[in-house]
Amino acid sequence: QESKTKPHSLVNKRLTSFLKTKDGQITVGLVREFLEFFELDFTCSVFDPETNVLKSYKGRNQLAADIGLKDNTDTPLLHDVLQQLRNASPTPATP
Amino acid sequence: QESKTKPHSLVNKRLTSFLKTKDGQITVGLVREFLEFFELDFTCSVFDPETNVLKSYKGRNQLAADIGLKDNTDTPLLHDVLQQLRNASPTPATP
Repeated sequence: QESKTKPHSLVNKRLTSFLKTKDGQITVGLVREFLEFFELDFTCSVFDPETNVLKSYKGRNQLAADIGLKDNTDTPLLHDVLQQLRNASPTPATP
Repeated sequence: QESKTKPHSLVNKRLTSFLKTKDGQITVGLVREFLEFFELDFTCSVFDPETNVLKSYKGRNQLAADIGLKDNTDTPLLHDVLQQLRNASPTPATP
């Protein structure tokens, strides 16, 4: 009774609606760029059809621009996002 | 001449050294949690052996704690990380 067994598409509904949002596309793009960065070719070859990510993912440069990151590091962008978050020290001071 | 054909391990060297750092483990954990969240079972079944992620990934709760996120959203943690980054508005004001 799950949509997993649909013959014409492996993409599930929850993911499909997530991918309709810009943030969703950026999120899945970060995952895709991670796989690409580490040359996880076996995973990519399953991930791409299972998510349909290539519809929205336009490569690392574009993704970095979408997030507002400089694409000048030797790490996956996802790692840079974490670093940025840490540098921004978002913990709200509880008065 | 690539390490990809090693019979006993699919894990590549660059990823292996990345995974030795705490930030590396968090990064790969965010990817793993994303796959799990959307029930991308086919991808997981390739991703897990290709990355050896399960050595360090201890589930969403632990990952959220490691990042300092509250685990109370209905989205993948990776999405929450992006949101936090946006809320923290890290763009330094250039005087």
